[in-house]
Amino acid sequence: MLEPDGRHAPVRFPHPAQAQTSGAFNARGGIARRRCVEEGTLEVMEAIRGRRAVRDYTGARMERPAIEGLIQAAILAPSARNLQPWAFAVLLDRARIEGYARRAKGWLLANFSQTSYDDSLRKMVEDPNFVMFYHAPALVLVLAKSSDTQAAEDCCLAAENLMLAARAEGYGTCWIGLARPWLNLPATKAELELPESFHVVAPIVVGHPKAWPESHGRDAAEIYWLG
Amino acid sequence: MLEPDGRHAPVRFPHPAQAQTSGAFNARGGIARRRCVEEGTLEVMEAIRGRRAVRDYTGARMERPAIEGLIQAAILAPSARNLQPWAFAVLLDRARIEGYARRAKGWLLANFSQTSYDDSLRKMVEDPNFVMFYHAPALVLVLAKSSDTQAAEDCCLAAENLMLAARAEGYGTCWIGLARPWLNLPATKAELELPESFHVVAPIVVGHPKAWPESHGRDAAEIYWLG
Repeated sequence: MLEPDGRHAPVRFPHPAQAQTSGAFNARGGIARRRCVEEGTLEVMEAIRGRRAVRDYTGARMERPAIEGLIQAAILAPSARNLQPWAFAVLLDRARIEGYARRAKGWLLANFSQTSYDDSLRKMVEDPNFVMFYHAPALVLVLAKSSDTQAAEDCCLAAENLMLAARAEGYGTCWIGLARPWLNLPATKAELELPESFHVVAPIVVGHPKAWPESHGRDAAEIYWLG
Repeated sequence: MLEPDGRHAPVRFPHPAQAQTSGAFNARGGIARRRCVEEGTLEVMEAIRGRRAVRDYTGARMERPAIEGLIQAAILAPSARNLQPWAFAVLLDRARIEGYARRAKGWLLANFSQTSYDDSLRKMVEDPNFVMFYHAPALVLVLAKSSDTQAAEDCCLAAENLMLAARAEGYGTCWIGLARPWLNLPATKAELELPESFHVVAPIVVGHPKAWPESHGRDAAEIYWLG
């Protein structure tokens, strides 16, 4: 990004609310031209800035085609050697999701010491009001098809694409890490008829948010400038 | 997404080239309204679809503010319990990047059997024309500040944000997994003056692409509909 005087200046990412009236100079250093996009889509940084962990959903269902659209975004992530080591499992039946939420919570409370979670998390899970999947209408599991570290990492890249695409479509998401130990039990995978060799990397709930929560904020980036 | 007849229909992500003239109905089911955004930005799915692993860069330098902007996008990724377990190291000196590229390659060839890489990769690395960092003008290391699996996963989410934000700004990126074993040697971290407890998760080169390569394509998504 070149400033009018030719110096390089920080890339500025306007707050979404200001995006339409921001800066006179665009990223390529020219005078800003405008182009028109459909509403219901979001500019990249609007989605990155506007994504939230949503834990409160309306009663509206998620339909299969919408989830398929998000998965299409997920699989466009890069992967080591283009191995695309991912698969996806989807639950859209609320009663089943609620049932699994109860069982995942119950298992976690009974086996907390088997996990690497610390005691502050145990208190959260013990709260009778804590519901594992937040009554969301959809649960998407991003599954690594191999046990390679890189497969799990590639699934994370896919998961971030999915969450950003969801944000652009107006859907909320939340990565439910606490559900992972139960989901990865051989018995659970057998019940879900998933190959035992698959590993649940990212359990992500998806739904229509009641509201977009405030951001938790971020610490300043810790950057080592090495030269 | 509602079709005119009220049924739910697939979320359609138009090809970037068609984005400005696509569909009459937007994601919220209303008649599409247009809004104007600055050029030099990209809509989310344009960036997800248009991102490429870029291995051929122009001679143009990357400046510190541009990299800072990408890191600001990275740290907006979600993280388990909002721990933000990431840090970043940045190299912008081409001579140093080239030097490290040679050393990382040399180490890898001498220690290939210590890695989990298979022999097809060894052939690629042995090629005298193979240059680890593709002569890119910038190398960003996304670093996990703890050894937790979740820290590495959160770094991957941050890395995907960084790569998408780069795409939106017109910069190419490539995740250089092969450099990781050398970068994670205690001796290398000591030389780079990085804490030994940090783990290099994502070595990503950044620069001005000579061209946007064709997509490698993707296999059809493997989706298990569980009900």
